[in-house]
Amino acid sequence: MSSSSSGHAAHPPAAPGDALADVDTPALVLDLDAFEANLAAVHGHARANGVRVRAHGKAHRCPEIACRQLAAGAVGVCCQKVGEAEGFAAAGIDDILVSNEIVGAAKLARLARLARSVRLAVCVDHPDAVTALAQACVAEGSRLDVLIEVDVGQGRCGVASVDEALALARALAAAPRLRLRGLQAYHGGAQHLRTAGERAAAFGETMRRAARVRDTLRSAGFRCEEVSGGGTGTFIHEAASGIYTEIQPGSYVLMDLDYRANQADAAAPALRQAIGVLATVMSVRDAHVLDSGPPAMRLPGWAVRTVSDEHTVVDRGPGTPALSLGARCLLDPGHCDPTMALHDWVVACRTNRVEAVWPVLPRGASR
Amino acid sequence: MSSSSSGHAAHPPAAPGDALADVDTPALVLDLDAFEANLAAVHGHARANGVRVRAHGKAHRCPEIACRQLAAGAVGVCCQKVGEAEGFAAAGIDDILVSNEIVGAAKLARLARLARSVRLAVCVDHPDAVTALAQACVAEGSRLDVLIEVDVGQGRCGVASVDEALALARALAAAPRLRLRGLQAYHGGAQHLRTAGERAAAFGETMRRAARVRDTLRSAGFRCEEVSGGGTGTFIHEAASGIYTEIQPGSYVLMDLDYRANQADAAAPALRQAIGVLATVMSVRDAHVLDSGPPAMRLPGWAVRTVSDEHTVVDRGPGTPALSLGARCLLDPGHCDPTMALHDWVVACRTNRVEAVWPVLPRGASR
Repeated sequence: MSSSSSGHAAHPPAAPGDALADVDTPALVLDLDAFEANLAAVHGHARANGVRVRAHGKAHRCPEIACRQLAAGAVGVCCQKVGEAEGFAAAGIDDILVSNEIVGAAKLARLARLARSVRLAVCVDHPDAVTALAQACVAEGSRLDVLIEVDVGQGRCGVASVDEALALARALAAAPRLRLRGLQAYHGGAQHLRTAGERAAAFGETMRRAARVRDTLRSAGFRCEEVSGGGTGTFIHEAASGIYTEIQPGSYVLMDLDYRANQADAAAPALRQAIGVLATVMSVRDAHVLDSGPPAMRLPGWAVRTVSDEHTVVDRGPGTPALSLGARCLLDPGHCDPTMALHDWVVACRTNRVEAVWPVLPRGASR
Repeated sequence: MSSSSSGHAAHPPAAPGDALADVDTPALVLDLDAFEANLAAVHGHARANGVRVRAHGKAHRCPEIACRQLAAGAVGVCCQKVGEAEGFAAAGIDDILVSNEIVGAAKLARLARLARSVRLAVCVDHPDAVTALAQACVAEGSRLDVLIEVDVGQGRCGVASVDEALALARALAAAPRLRLRGLQAYHGGAQHLRTAGERAAAFGETMRRAARVRDTLRSAGFRCEEVSGGGTGTFIHEAASGIYTEIQPGSYVLMDLDYRANQADAAAPALRQAIGVLATVMSVRDAHVLDSGPPAMRLPGWAVRTVSDEHTVVDRGPGTPALSLGARCLLDPGHCDPTMALHDWVVACRTNRVEAVWPVLPRGASR
């Protein structure tokens, strides 16, 4: 290896006090007013419904955002990767759920080590994973809480039957240093069903499956104190369910085009677009086609025609003034999570002024 | 800022001498035999046709790969971002073309500073860019070569007319510290036209436009020694054209599904899939649906059903043996460039043994 990948980290694209117009591009720009309004709306809704918020840190991978979610009432964060959990723990977040299955001796050793210093939980959906997890905790001298993941309709991870859940609960009871905390019951596919009716129907099935597993475990004598799940698209249902104790929204603080394409639930708090990617016009041509595609220009009258690795081609509508070379535009991301993960820094702004610059966890957090 | 984004760089997923089975996942895995065969095939083809290879470093962002491209005969690299150019220069690459327009005072200052230490060129397609570039070079006390980018059919960047090219050539002649080296004439959209006939037809128009601008500039008394362009999908045409002096393939050393979906040109050297993403099975379910989508499993009998942020759901065909929890699979990327940019390290292997681990330029290279 001729050089370290960490030896060439980029300088931040801005400093506190800078004007938005002076931010180097491309840059993630967070509108703090919108961000704080989203925090207040969702955390207020959860409080009113008597459920906790465990904010999904995979959406942003930004410890400074996570700290503000905790300050707004979140009990902790969840994330998908051991590297994310390590990054959040290093920033002082002390209650973390890895809402995913973790496989492989090296990753399990890191997980068990992390459990020495923070309140940590992880998901399982296979008996072999229980054995491996217990071995890692014995080796590291730590204890871990475990959530049994239930497939509540997504068909991705999670146990598909009550019998599998019971077998896992028994395996957990017999395993050293592990404690069954409850269920992970998240339906990713339901988040982006477009109509309120479709999401409500999907949640009906989600809740039926989660409740059935919880009730069976309790009847068999297992404590099952937590049922955790729900994202930005469905959390009002989990919050109102009487079954879920925790909701796991992530995108709500940022928002993206995919969530904005959902028809609103009457009962849901309105959420504002808080994150954007600041770009610079680096070539100007005359064209008048109108089309649509991800991402979207925030400036009215403009439409994104194509996106390639380093170029977004935008077309202006009739009557829309041209943009000059070097002009700045905000693009709203189609999907906020992977957009965040491409950047080193979040530029937090208020009314066109940079208030803070926050680091995003490094690429390595994907392992 | 509570912490530096560089303070948490990931450890490499493997070390030289490790077995492929012991590589931590997800990991970029480069098959060195395939990589070296691709290098020899394309560089040999270029040599036989009397054109230089300027390897496109944006495809991999990996200085160790770039060094091997130079050792195989490339005159230098091209890239799209100032941050990429800085990263390659820091690794000792001393002939770099930024095959893109660069806008904004901060980026131009960095570009002009870099031109003090390496042979550097950049593209322009607007007179204002010539002025700004000259100012930056005067301020930094450096000199830059410039290529006029010609829109040869993509409709993205580049001058659309001969008159615009002539105006730029005159502006460059009048500007201090800038020298017109020639033309950038790349048609990205033509690379992935599926049939050899479609690509040949698109190249006919590409060449017609490039030749017309070159001939007009020469008739007006301007030197126009370089015509640079062509990617993995069309380079045999640029190499045979008699117009192009340099080809700019990038993906050829790695390959991806999008390029493999092209029907082969009879005259083109065969290219092998060299890069893959190593993944671990972290949940097993029984399913027998067959479907397709990007990326693809390298293991026969398996099909990718869906891809989300941290999960790739794969289905096995009838008669295909199941994969166990913790099993490793190689996924061939749909598009190699953005896949590379998500990783810190390239694990270079030969026959299931790790030979080297090479850093990828940091995320910040996107600025």
